[in-house]
Amino acid sequence: MPQLRIALAQVNATVGDLDGNASLIASWTERAADAGAHLVVFPEMVLTGYPVEDLALRKSFAAASRSALSALAARLDAAGHGSVAAVVSYLDLDEVGPRDAVAVLYGGRVTATQFKHHLPNYGVFDERRLFKPGQTLDIVRLHGLEVGMVICEDIWQEGGPIAALGAAGVDLVVSPNASPYERNKDDVREPLVARRAEEAGAPLVYVNMIGGQDDLVFDGDSMVVSPSGELLTRLPQFVEHLTVMDLDLPGGASTSSGDFGGFAVRRVTLTSDALAPYEALVTPSPAEPLSEPEEIWRALKVGLGDYVRKNGFTSVVLGLSGGIDSAVCAALAVDALGAENVHGVSMPSVYSSSHSRSDAADLASRTGLHYQVQAIEDMVAVFVGQLGLTGLAEENVQARCRGMTLMGLSNQYGHLVLATGNKTELAVGYSTIYGDAVGGFAPIKDVPKTLVWELARWRNELAAVRGETPPIPENSISKPPSAELRPGQLDADSLPDYDLLDRVLDDYVEGDRGYEDLMAAGFAPELIDKVLRMVDRAEYKRRQYPPGTKITFKAFGRDRRLPMTNAWREGK
Amino acid sequence: MPQLRIALAQVNATVGDLDGNASLIASWTERAADAGAHLVVFPEMVLTGYPVEDLALRKSFAAASRSALSALAARLDAAGHGSVAAVVSYLDLDEVGPRDAVAVLYGGRVTATQFKHHLPNYGVFDERRLFKPGQTLDIVRLHGLEVGMVICEDIWQEGGPIAALGAAGVDLVVSPNASPYERNKDDVREPLVARRAEEAGAPLVYVNMIGGQDDLVFDGDSMVVSPSGELLTRLPQFVEHLTVMDLDLPGGASTSSGDFGGFAVRRVTLTSDALAPYEALVTPSPAEPLSEPEEIWRALKVGLGDYVRKNGFTSVVLGLSGGIDSAVCAALAVDALGAENVHGVSMPSVYSSSHSRSDAADLASRTGLHYQVQAIEDMVAVFVGQLGLTGLAEENVQARCRGMTLMGLSNQYGHLVLATGNKTELAVGYSTIYGDAVGGFAPIKDVPKTLVWELARWRNELAAVRGETPPIPENSISKPPSAELRPGQLDADSLPDYDLLDRVLDDYVEGDRGYEDLMAAGFAPELIDKVLRMVDRAEYKRRQYPPGTKITFKAFGRDRRLPMTNAWREGK
Repeated sequence: MPQLRIALAQVNATVGDLDGNASLIASWTERAADAGAHLVVFPEMVLTGYPVEDLALRKSFAAASRSALSALAARLDAAGHGSVAAVVSYLDLDEVGPRDAVAVLYGGRVTATQFKHHLPNYGVFDERRLFKPGQTLDIVRLHGLEVGMVICEDIWQEGGPIAALGAAGVDLVVSPNASPYERNKDDVREPLVARRAEEAGAPLVYVNMIGGQDDLVFDGDSMVVSPSGELLTRLPQFVEHLTVMDLDLPGGASTSSGDFGGFAVRRVTLTSDALAPYEALVTPSPAEPLSEPEEIWRALKVGLGDYVRKNGFTSVVLGLSGGIDSAVCAALAVDALGAENVHGVSMPSVYSSSHSRSDAADLASRTGLHYQVQAIEDMVAVFVGQLGLTGLAEENVQARCRGMTLMGLSNQYGHLVLATGNKTELAVGYSTIYGDAVGGFAPIKDVPKTLVWELARWRNELAAVRGETPPIPENSISKPPSAELRPGQLDADSLPDYDLLDRVLDDYVEGDRGYEDLMAAGFAPELIDKVLRMVDRAEYKRRQYPPGTKITFKAFGRDRRLPMTNAWREGK
Repeated sequence: MPQLRIALAQVNATVGDLDGNASLIASWTERAADAGAHLVVFPEMVLTGYPVEDLALRKSFAAASRSALSALAARLDAAGHGSVAAVVSYLDLDEVGPRDAVAVLYGGRVTATQFKHHLPNYGVFDERRLFKPGQTLDIVRLHGLEVGMVICEDIWQEGGPIAALGAAGVDLVVSPNASPYERNKDDVREPLVARRAEEAGAPLVYVNMIGGQDDLVFDGDSMVVSPSGELLTRLPQFVEHLTVMDLDLPGGASTSSGDFGGFAVRRVTLTSDALAPYEALVTPSPAEPLSEPEEIWRALKVGLGDYVRKNGFTSVVLGLSGGIDSAVCAALAVDALGAENVHGVSMPSVYSSSHSRSDAADLASRTGLHYQVQAIEDMVAVFVGQLGLTGLAEENVQARCRGMTLMGLSNQYGHLVLATGNKTELAVGYSTIYGDAVGGFAPIKDVPKTLVWELARWRNELAAVRGETPPIPENSISKPPSAELRPGQLDADSLPDYDLLDRVLDDYVEGDRGYEDLMAAGFAPELIDKVLRMVDRAEYKRRQYPPGTKITFKAFGRDRRLPMTNAWREGK
């Protein structure tokens, strides 16, 4: 059977960095060429980074993307890799409008181009705002084999381009993707890719990007699936990775062109000579899947690390309360950036327990991060005394003096401030705006409280398995949570039990369920009332909260767009 | 000729308040009935408020909207107004998905329903995320006249429903709208409505909502235009208003149904008896157009006032620096809420000039707002001393002590905090996050600095014309702007001249122009470099900024969605 050596280049591009991304593509194409690959496939919009959001509408950026693509084709050829067909996705602009596009670079030229057809406009996606859909398909002939292309969402929808390729005839389909990580999403991808390979009647090469971009993180999880649904290989998640693989292809696909299901199919011949069969096929086995907590931990680590690095920071500062949230954020930061780049600050008040300081100090000594204590007593006293603040106003001043302290250290020393709030707090508004909500990035913003505990336990167990010191003090995991803004305060005084609360929130926030559904799920009416009112009233706080890595089906932010001024109350 | 008395009900609905909005519709229908109207037209999604954003996707809310519509039909009939055809727009949900819908309530029933066809997905709009497009048109026969309907965007696009109504045959077209205010947009609306009336071959009754909703404000500007393009009447902007008008209609439109240009046209007969001609026609003359500064001032006043009231606040607190921005915000707040509900705080530091205090006090005495002085010296001293802050870190602490002071007063006394930054500052990041950026609402967030001055002068002139005390001290208008965070500091030390800066920003932010276009416009390369870098780097600050009323073509926020992590630099 005809053979082809393909390379999947699962890389980490940076939004807007056309020069850097072009160099990235050149260097990975070189690695693929050195390994003897005839075809190398990069993720969706690898040349511009993804998502570019409204940069897609800026004509100067689209023009620069087109120029960068042509220059890259010439550069690959000049480096001696012109005979490796490089599948490079980029931003295009024609008379119809901006396009999410893919091109095949070969022999120093842009030889084939097509545009994404299905434009997702749900969840975090705004692609019908940004792009015009494509209706053409370019199939390239490479060493006598017919190679078709589809971009990302085009494989998530029934029919469309995949069915057209199947009808027109292809030996292989390649698909550049920018599919953001979500808990459990990898379980959905493989059967989906398998279904599409079957529809196309050809193996499908799925290449997804990795890396963090503001509130999104991409996990890779690239793969090759046979038309019978067999997983031929799979790449590890959350790391840049090149997999080179030999495919045995039957060949002999029809080479007809013209209209197929509304798509104008064009054939582009790169090279018609079939390759001599290899003696030994390179067939890398699939990467081991990660456990769920490890997968989430890596998502958070990459999301945080990339936000810091891609925005030109090298270090972070965060408050250490001795509680579980700040401990997990600190452990993540140490994993992402190294202990020498993490600065923890204990900021006790008159209401702070002795363990709040000792647990913070314990965390510091376990992880080796930089540690200092800044008591906020004197700061608080001036505000409370001068302004005559009492009750909640006095509580909030404590949180805000901590926020100001962190911002002061940030401005003085150039560290990025991390906000340590979790998704549960953010949902019910259990945080102080301009206080503990202060930060450039919020690593566990999309992690429900019960999952924060689970991750802490998992991370400590991992350390134990590796013979390392568990980073998180046991006491931070086991003690009852408290904001310590007044004497003897516990979260449980104001909030339902976290196990119960997270279940209600999962139904209301992620499931978008109404009052009757929640009643049917068995929650008490008073509980539903209380939780929903807290969630609805906190929308204004969420709007001013820092970005943080999305790991759930529905994160606060672009995923869930609700009005602040909103009189609707479920169950009224 | 057959006649019909129509009523345009330009009302202020509240998002999510189904009960309140139903009562609003009932009370205005009663007013229309009392004036002898046969048809009353309300704005787009008047029953739910607009925009509902992702509430459109919540099934419980859509079900409640449908129920509220039926209940409203019965209520209108029970009140004796069942013979007034009420055109009420609402959120519907069918097996296809959520719909931006309009219904005719008549005789206690929902007699006709259709769905918006063109779904805007640009600028501030996300309607392809939220709704499925309609392909049916219901034309009602009212007193022997054929009345068609089109919703908002359906009149902004060529062809489509309007052309289908024209081809099917109508005597009158009514159009519920939720068209957000933008500077100069009213100049576009009238010729547009005229073109559509001509396409339909019938008078067009355009009814737009008024009122503020988060960062949007609706200006009304409802009107009736004849098929020959003549403006028959026009309602005043930014106020709730009922206009009742007698239309002389030729009648005799075709009553054919079936497919017209892809739309399934259905005819619904309410009543076939023609009305006896009136002896004297009620033909109210168009409202006088507002001057540009007055129009903008009213937009800002309504936007601010509605955010405060619809969110359950009665009073606001803001810092008074003696400068122009805080003076204009204070004057707006006094106009919107009354001086007794506005609390101004002068917060001098060791770097504050004497005029910063005297100008703030002068503003307070001119407007009658509550005034207090809270020196920040002691607060700043603790942070600077304890943390060893210098330079920019020390400057920022001053701004943040002011922010904390305002938040403390807000928490203690229940006032909403206003952030006083303007669009120019927000564009170039000339503000301190968690400092002067603190607030629940930012009234002049979308007002460029040069326009802030223009509005101040206009407001003072208006006062003079009315024989009132001009609210804004002349010195606040004429003195050179300064943040006063270090000795002798002036804005001009860090920023280009504001006239020039606002022109660059207008091209770059509103026009989305690139480097070459800016060069072609005659700006110096160093100026372009400096301004664009400041704008690009401040994206993270804008993400955490409070909402404020959109008045320009492109406001920061939903109108301009750019990544924070973004290596693209124009002109590189």
